[in-house]
Amino acid sequence: MARVVVDVMPKPEILDPQGQAVAGALHRLGVAGVTDVRQGKHFELEVDDAVDDDTLHRIAGSLLANPVIEDWRVTRA
Amino acid sequence: MARVVVDVMPKPEILDPQGQAVAGALHRLGVAGVTDVRQGKHFELEVDDAVDDDTLHRIAGSLLANPVIEDWRVTRA
Repeated sequence: MARVVVDVMPKPEILDPQGQAVAGALHRLGVAGVTDVRQGKHFELEVDDAVDDDTLHRIAGSLLANPVIEDWRVTRA
Repeated sequence: MARVVVDVMPKPEILDPQGQAVAGALHRLGVAGVTDVRQGKHFELEVDDAVDDDTLHRIAGSLLANPVIEDWRVTRA
């Protein structure tokens, strides 16, 4: 059994209203020094050792992320 | 300027319907070997070098995460 982490982020050229809302809230609350916030998704999967990296990338790119607007990174933890 | 990553996950004792939906979808699509999925949030912040770790933890625990139901991890990338 292995733990796999998949991080999914909006592509750089895609607007990120959630991240912008957080950045705006920080500014209004008086937190200085945070110039940009991007928000994405973080998945933690428990997978059998038999599941190979190709399968993990297929899962990430077809189910966890929308490849039109999102990038993803698969990490074995 | 530094990049800071904040990962926010539902606490282990909290139900995670989004993660369960993904796990169920994987099973229905015939992907074997994934036994559990938990879904959380992934933030990437651009911060000035003057922002210290205490401030980052305060931001994470008060704005990015709900400490009643979520755990968070702050990482300088």
